[in-house]
Amino acid sequence: MVENSLKFHKQNISSINSYTRRINDEVNDGQIGYYHLPSFEIDGLIHAISSIKNMDFDSVVLVGVGGSSLGVKALYDMLNLKKELIFLDNLDPFSIEQKSAKINPQKSIFIISSKSGTTIETISIYKYILDKFDIKDYSNFIFITDPNSPLENHAKKINATIFNIPKNVGGRFSVLSAIGLVPLGLCGADIKALLDGANSVKEQYLQNGDDTILQKAYHYATHKSAKINVLFSYSDRLTSFNEWYIQLWAESLGKKRGYKRVGLTPVGLVGSKDQHSFLQLIMEGIKDKTVTFITIKDHGSDIVVPNLNLDFLSGCDFVNSKPISDVFNAQAHSTMQALSSELISIDEIALDRIDEWHCGWLIYYYELLTSAIGVMFGINTYDQPGVEMGKRILKKLLDDSD
Amino acid sequence: MVENSLKFHKQNISSINSYTRRINDEVNDGQIGYYHLPSFEIDGLIHAISSIKNMDFDSVVLVGVGGSSLGVKALYDMLNLKKELIFLDNLDPFSIEQKSAKINPQKSIFIISSKSGTTIETISIYKYILDKFDIKDYSNFIFITDPNSPLENHAKKINATIFNIPKNVGGRFSVLSAIGLVPLGLCGADIKALLDGANSVKEQYLQNGDDTILQKAYHYATHKSAKINVLFSYSDRLTSFNEWYIQLWAESLGKKRGYKRVGLTPVGLVGSKDQHSFLQLIMEGIKDKTVTFITIKDHGSDIVVPNLNLDFLSGCDFVNSKPISDVFNAQAHSTMQALSSELISIDEIALDRIDEWHCGWLIYYYELLTSAIGVMFGINTYDQPGVEMGKRILKKLLDDSD
Repeated sequence: MVENSLKFHKQNISSINSYTRRINDEVNDGQIGYYHLPSFEIDGLIHAISSIKNMDFDSVVLVGVGGSSLGVKALYDMLNLKKELIFLDNLDPFSIEQKSAKINPQKSIFIISSKSGTTIETISIYKYILDKFDIKDYSNFIFITDPNSPLENHAKKINATIFNIPKNVGGRFSVLSAIGLVPLGLCGADIKALLDGANSVKEQYLQNGDDTILQKAYHYATHKSAKINVLFSYSDRLTSFNEWYIQLWAESLGKKRGYKRVGLTPVGLVGSKDQHSFLQLIMEGIKDKTVTFITIKDHGSDIVVPNLNLDFLSGCDFVNSKPISDVFNAQAHSTMQALSSELISIDEIALDRIDEWHCGWLIYYYELLTSAIGVMFGINTYDQPGVEMGKRILKKLLDDSD
Repeated sequence: MVENSLKFHKQNISSINSYTRRINDEVNDGQIGYYHLPSFEIDGLIHAISSIKNMDFDSVVLVGVGGSSLGVKALYDMLNLKKELIFLDNLDPFSIEQKSAKINPQKSIFIISSKSGTTIETISIYKYILDKFDIKDYSNFIFITDPNSPLENHAKKINATIFNIPKNVGGRFSVLSAIGLVPLGLCGADIKALLDGANSVKEQYLQNGDDTILQKAYHYATHKSAKINVLFSYSDRLTSFNEWYIQLWAESLGKKRGYKRVGLTPVGLVGSKDQHSFLQLIMEGIKDKTVTFITIKDHGSDIVVPNLNLDFLSGCDFVNSKPISDVFNAQAHSTMQALSSELISIDEIALDRIDEWHCGWLIYYYELLTSAIGVMFGINTYDQPGVEMGKRILKKLLDDSD
């Protein structure tokens, strides 16, 4: 169960009705693929993953950047799975060397993920692996890419296993496709439950008329001064989820619309520790932020603050004998109250617990919210034209250096 | 060596002269303690750390939140030290339980760090450790706290080792005091070199008249539309440094000045991977950001993109045979050029390498920059009044729940 309670004023329904229609058009015309991922038939995929799981391996090594790794890492870190998943997700030579030193190629499954199939970081790291481990046999290599991409053609040539991303599913919206399901399934995640959670969001907000997402999107899209959205997640396990949200939000919503620039800047915080960091700025700095809290009812731990009365430290005894979980969640709620008293727009997403169903819910909820804001901004939520110039300059810089 | 090059217009020196005077006053009146940490006599501290290092231990366990852990983690993650340092830095019950399960209390040195000595998270986790490991002997416990704090009195009572933070050094400015030097020294860091690096910043910018920090502070403090500062660090090892910067910046600069709210929102990115995430927003979203790049000349790795020509992937061959380090740094420079073409204010801090000296440099550079902006904002950079309300509400919530 998940409850999303908005602690700011809702709009009269008529002012958002036109947006509802446009989002439904987007869903129904079939051009934006991610909407339909939760209802994909995945029995074949589950079967394929099961076959691969029969291999003898200790670790999965995922080579992929941006949309090919952030969502997978978000879910992996939330779900506390048993099998190790190593992310080669940056071109940093120091970390590539350090992480590779720990890989046993005979006991690993390598996944090379790139939607376009030509991501320079991914292909370069792939070449480094081929060379370092002197790979001759590709039976433990999996390629996840668009149909007919250069990487798929390469994989076909070497007779490696291939999974496709539907062409109309954007990279940052792709974690509920093979991009996420294959590595997570190999590590032991219940991928069916992930999609069930996502489906539940779809039913609640797209079919059953719950307007919470639309209200929230409208509030954000029309807020005159708050152009920053803070996601304050009260669980260490959500640290990588914050990173995924940042990509989704920044790359989808930061766009030029004609000559006008629009966007909402995402900030990810982890409670309660960031109460000792960023909170002061929200409380007293410029009022340019809305804040969403994610809280977890059952943290899967029943540890308690021991009933110890230490000399000179009696001022800290008011939490004695309380479950740490209760104190932690009370910290979230006291922070919410403090922000409300400064009239800052907040809302809370309360998850019962962190498991596949709730993770699928959370991922899809954020994807829908992002789409809704994009429709209200009147932008193309699904492209990223701004990152192309840097790629062109890179090629020129390196060509010139020869 | 470090070079900080500003790629935006400098101000005429006369408009910042009055600020120079006020910063010098702050340095000279002795009330802001962190300014003087680099010139502290630390032979005694080094000797004390050496004695403790003679003990038989595999890990250091640091219990501390906010200013007691963020700077330590920043330096620990940058320096790649040999000894394990475990951070109990959040009240999340799941992670406390998970991390504690890995602690061998007989082979650990426990450091309990709290400036005030009454941080509720720190004391609660300390109690949990006492209870879980049934501690009777405190010979492997170290307490780092203000002189005469409740925690110091407690530590005296149990005859444990104590290190003090100078009272006039604020928590988030304290990493170059015992707060950072003790745990990092125990893990094998050269703490003398850390302070030497810091001292070099002090000489360059406070004594030798380099006005780069003041120019940069002035640009940020007076920029009408860019209220967000992005720190784009091109090294995975700087991920935790970004977190430290976020606390320093947010908590120091987000303040009410009378009825007016001021502040600059800090955002931490890691290149090149976040070129696939946040970059689109900077390039095309609202122009509300300045961007600082940190680059590393020598990444301490000489791995190369292998000269492999893979079928169908020739489009990625332009990096073949190049050191990955060169490609990675070229990514930083191509991103800078792309942002410059959109007329976004950028600057680059180029470090020769990541070692103690350069880390000390970077820490102190950012502390000075923060102080300079604070003076220009006309605020108290060193307090955090906005976080007190939440603490009061927490106590009330928990008292009511009894």
